[in-house]
Parts: sequence; C-alpha cells; structure tokens
Amino acid sequence: MALTIDFENAARKRLDGLAKPRGSLGQLENLAVTLARIQQSDRIATRPRRLVLFAGDHGVVDSGVSAWPSAVTTLMIATIVGGGAASSVLARETDTDLRIIDVGSLDSTPSDPPGFYRDARVRRGTRNLAQEAALTVAEFDAAWAVGADEAKAASQAGFRIVTAGEMGIGNTTPAACLTMLIAGAPLDQAVGRGAGAGDEVMATKRRVVAAAVEGEADREIKTAIAALCGLEIAAMAGFFANAATLGLVILLDGYVTTAAALIAEQLSPGTARAMIAGHQSAEPGHKSALDFLGLEPLLRFDMRLGEGTGALTAMPLLDAAAAIFNQMASLEEVGVARRD
Amino acid sequence: MALTIDFENAARKRLDGLAKPRGSLGQLENLAVTLARIQQSDRIATRPRRLVLFAGDHGVVDSGVSAWPSAVTTLMIATIVGGGAASSVLARETDTDLRIIDVGSLDSTPSDPPGFYRDARVRRGTRNLAQEAALTVAEFDAAWAVGADEAKAASQAGFRIVTAGEMGIGNTTPAACLTMLIAGAPLDQAVGRGAGAGDEVMATKRRVVAAAVEGEADREIKTAIAALCGLEIAAMAGFFANAATLGLVILLDGYVTTAAALIAEQLSPGTARAMIAGHQSAEPGHKSALDFLGLEPLLRFDMRLGEGTGALTAMPLLDAAAAIFNQMASLEEVGVARRD
Repeated sequence: MALTIDFENAARKRLDGLAKPRGSLGQLENLAVTLARIQQSDRIATRPRRLVLFAGDHGVVDSGVSAWPSAVTTLMIATIVGGGAASSVLARETDTDLRIIDVGSLDSTPSDPPGFYRDARVRRGTRNLAQEAALTVAEFDAAWAVGADEAKAASQAGFRIVTAGEMGIGNTTPAACLTMLIAGAPLDQAVGRGAGAGDEVMATKRRVVAAAVEGEADREIKTAIAALCGLEIAAMAGFFANAATLGLVILLDGYVTTAAALIAEQLSPGTARAMIAGHQSAEPGHKSALDFLGLEPLLRFDMRLGEGTGALTAMPLLDAAAAIFNQMASLEEVGVARRD
Repeated sequence: MALTIDFENAARKRLDGLAKPRGSLGQLENLAVTLARIQQSDRIATRPRRLVLFAGDHGVVDSGVSAWPSAVTTLMIATIVGGGAASSVLARETDTDLRIIDVGSLDSTPSDPPGFYRDARVRRGTRNLAQEAALTVAEFDAAWAVGADEAKAASQAGFRIVTAGEMGIGNTTPAACLTMLIAGAPLDQAVGRGAGAGDEVMATKRRVVAAAVEGEADREIKTAIAALCGLEIAAMAGFFANAATLGLVILLDGYVTTAAALIAEQLSPGTARAMIAGHQSAEPGHKSALDFLGLEPLLRFDMRLGEGTGALTAMPLLDAAAAIFNQMASLEEVGVARRD
C-alpha cells in the first residue's frame, strides 16, 4: 500500500505556523496551498517555467467575425520569433522560457527559424465553422498530440510550471462556441469583442456562434468539439491534459486558453485540479468558463490580448507565494505564542 | 517659460502604437501611463526600488484593542532584522532594498544591528489615545522629519520606486481614527479586525475609536491628526510627502500605510498623484481610504499583515507594465495597419 500524504493539509498547517497572524496573507496563502497540492511536495518550485504559444488560423474569419485579417497571425508569429511581441517581452521579464508551435497557420514559415519555433502544422487553417465542421476528429486528435508532445518535452526538461498561450486571428469565435457547448454559457456572455470587434462584427459573430453551436448540440461530444475547434485550441487541450498527468502546475491565460482547458477537463477529467487561473479577461465569457472549472482568477486586469500575457503577468504572484511558503520564519523561531 | 511635456498623453499614444489591439493590455497599460506621468519620462524605470519599514508602539494597546501584546513589535523587528519575516522574504524575491527604521518601539534595540536598521526613536511608544493625545504636534513633526529624511536618502541613492510598510502592534486603531477623521469613513467601515481581533476586542476597538475621533472633531486638523496618530504613521506621512516632491513613485501597501497617505495628502496636497495602490486589504476601511485618494488597487488578495507585504506582492506588476512600455515592438515595425 502506497503511503498517501495530504500535502494540502500539511501546507495549511505550515502556513499557520509562520511568523504572522493566521491567514493574514490571504490569497497568497491559498495559492501556496494549491501549489503544494499540485506539486505534492512540502517545498514549492516555481522555476524553471515555460510558456508554449500555439498558433493557428481560422476559416471562420471568412464570415467576418474579426476586425483583423488572418495575415496578422503570420505577422505576429514573426514578431514573437523576433522577440518584440507582448509575450516575448513578458517572458523575458518573468524569466519564463518561451516556445512557439505553429499548429495551423495559413502561411507562416519564418526564414531562419530559431530553436524555440516548431512547424507542426496539422493543416493550414481550419475549415469555416459557419459552413462545415472546422476539424475532423482525426485532425483534432493530431493537433491534441502536438500539445501532448510539448507537455512531455517540458516535463522531461524539468519545467515545474507551464502555461500556454495562443495566436490565431478569429479564435474568440471557436472559444465562444466551446464555452457555450461545454460550460453552458448563454450566447450574450459567450460572445465578446475579442481583439476589437465593432458592432457590426459583433452581430455577425453572435449569429455565427449561435448557429454553429445549435448545429452540433445533438452530436457526440468529441465530434462536436472538433467541429467547433481551432488547431491551436486542440493542441492546448492536449498540452493541458498531459501536463496535469505529469504533475506540472498549469497557469491559465485568457478566454481562448480557458476554452482549451474546458476541452481538456471534458476529455480528461481532473485536469482542472492542476490549474491556477492567472487572470480573468475582459471577455465576458471567461468568467463563466473559470466558474465551470472551479477556478478563481488571481488578477482582474481587463486584459484581452491572449498570447499568454495574462498568465505571464500573474507569474510573479506564484513566486511570492512560494517564497513565503519556503522561506519565512516560524512563530516558534520568533518566540511568539499563537494568539489567533 | 519652461517647456511642459504631457507625458501622460505621450505614454497613451506610445501604447496605442504597439503591436497589439488598442487597450488590450487593460490595467497594465493604465499602470504604464501612471508610471510615465509620475516619472515624467518616455522611459519607465522600476529599479532600483526600496521598502522602508517604520516601527512604533501604541499606548492604546493598554485599552485592549489588539489580540497581540506590544512585545510582539520588538520580536518582529528582530525577525525583520534576521531576514525571516514576510517582508524580508518578499523584498528578496522582488529585488527590493529593505530598510527598517524604529521611530518609537517600547524597547527594541537589536544586538549587533545591521546597516539597514536605524534607531530614530522620537519617544518609546505613543500615549494612550483613549485617554489623551497620542502625540503632541512637536512629536508628530519629529516623526514626520524621520520619514522625510528617508525619502531624501532614497532619492539621493537613486531609487526610483519607494514603498513604506509598518510594524506596530495596535496600529489599526489609529489608522481607523485617521480614516474617519480625514476620509470621513463611517465607524463600522473604519474599524476592522486588524491582525486578528475577536468579538470582544472588536467592541472595545469600536468604542475607543468612536470616542477618540469625537474628541478631536473640533480641533485644528494637524493637532487632531497628532492626537490620533502613531509615530510610524507620522513618519510614513513625511516619507510620502517628500518622496512625491522628489519625483519618486510611491507604491502603497495596506490600511495603516494608507492612513499615513491620507495625512500626507491632507498636509501636502498633491502627494496622492505620485501614488499607486498595490492592493486593497481585508480591512474594510482600506477601500474608503483608497477611494478618498482616488486610487484603484492592483490586487485584491485579502491580505492584512502590513509590513509592506501587499506592496511587494504587487511590485512585479509595475515591472510588467514597464517592460511592455519600454520593450514592445510597434505595429509599424510589425507591418500591420491600425484596425481598431
């Protein structure tokens, strides 16, 4: 019989014995307990950590759901490769290793790609989900496998915290579909302005999402997910499900990433137990998705960029929780008796 | 005529030209604008930074307003000097220089004190504000001057961001008095549980605060402030007022620190323009005080420890804002035209 240690309880006890009033570090203490539970350890490690960015294009952009053309996906991949994107900057600032995996852009192939870039395209963009299934189940599985491989590689390389981000013009539309399908969010909550949709684009987006979800309602769940999915979203789902199994801490980013988390939890139940929500985005559906996963966000910063930027902004909060947990003196060492 | 540059407007324009949808980094962008405005620069510097901890004891502890005895102030000074306190740990984690200034503990004198400790006691503890004026105006001025000197020293040493924290058993009682007096908070909001007061202590605290504020209502404002103040609170007020004048960014911690900020703004109007609120504490009066100063907190983490811990937890968010502002590529460099 294996010895089972309740690391959650042990972590709470340890925190209660530190030189401070009980519970006085609030959410920082809860965060430490969560980290100790996921890592199954009496010492928390927040380094090394890695952000894996998954990129893909979306056929549904042809239906007018985005303010930006698909070509921007390619330009942003190049910007990330060049180190000038928001995610590049924040990864450097937070000492987070960055990788970018192209799972399905239309036409990105950086000249002279660096070692942290990988071309793993399953196909060039999804089909238009307003007209047909975006992906077949086989394509979904292939994209999932790309993410699964990345989780295994991160674990083998010794990373302790992983986060995923995405780059894909139009991908708040599949995210909205998946949040309705899996978390049961109402249409008005699920559909937000994404990267900057105006009123006309919003009306189109709402119509497209409602019809697409309606069309998949009676299908087998994995078939329905594939039909409404994006390649980068499927890859993130496979990344999360495998990272959780490997004991890695998953720091969640925004709305699209959380749609992938919903898929992971649906197809590999328990994955959400390894997750920490970095922030709650400005997209209204994000709260529904986080609630469904039972996650409370660390930050509410009205961010809506994606690319892992919300997760990276929250990353140092994990360091603070770990530092308190690993390094603080105990009340006993200080010579004070517990009074509260 | 001096050339006036509108750095706030320039910062907003710069952010709008970066490779991301307009405003998509939410509060991180607002934070960058605030930093650029306070520093009057088109480049934000968040390093080096310093936390100055001010310690003092409170005569009102004799009236039963705290769950902990005054002796804990001395023990915690020793713990901070020894490097095992929450503030010590978070200062190391966030690369923040730490100083501790004893402005009025009852009996702390570390044997073999390190260079970052300074004994600048104006008197040993305040008088009991439940019975008489806690400080005379002359004592208040002397404590203020200790803080003013620390601000000047930080500026001369090249620090760009400063934060203050406090250590003083019983000091949420003067903080509650000052929040009522200056920000006009109602009694039930102003008086919270501090570091862990039970129901009986809470009832006493409420009675003491109500009577003390009532007793000072008609007096000249500075006399009233001194009568309700703590030595560490007066020192923080002097620190803030002078830091603002010297162009330093002030990152605010919790309830007691913000009471000092209220004094600084009252006696040196405009000080609040140099402030960023790190977090909103679990003490209900903190929100009233922040609202009065026109500050929106970065974090809501239910922390209530003091010692600068909330400010230090928020410190890396300033780094993230600065990194985005200083380092991101522009849309022009990426080759995308503005669409939103």
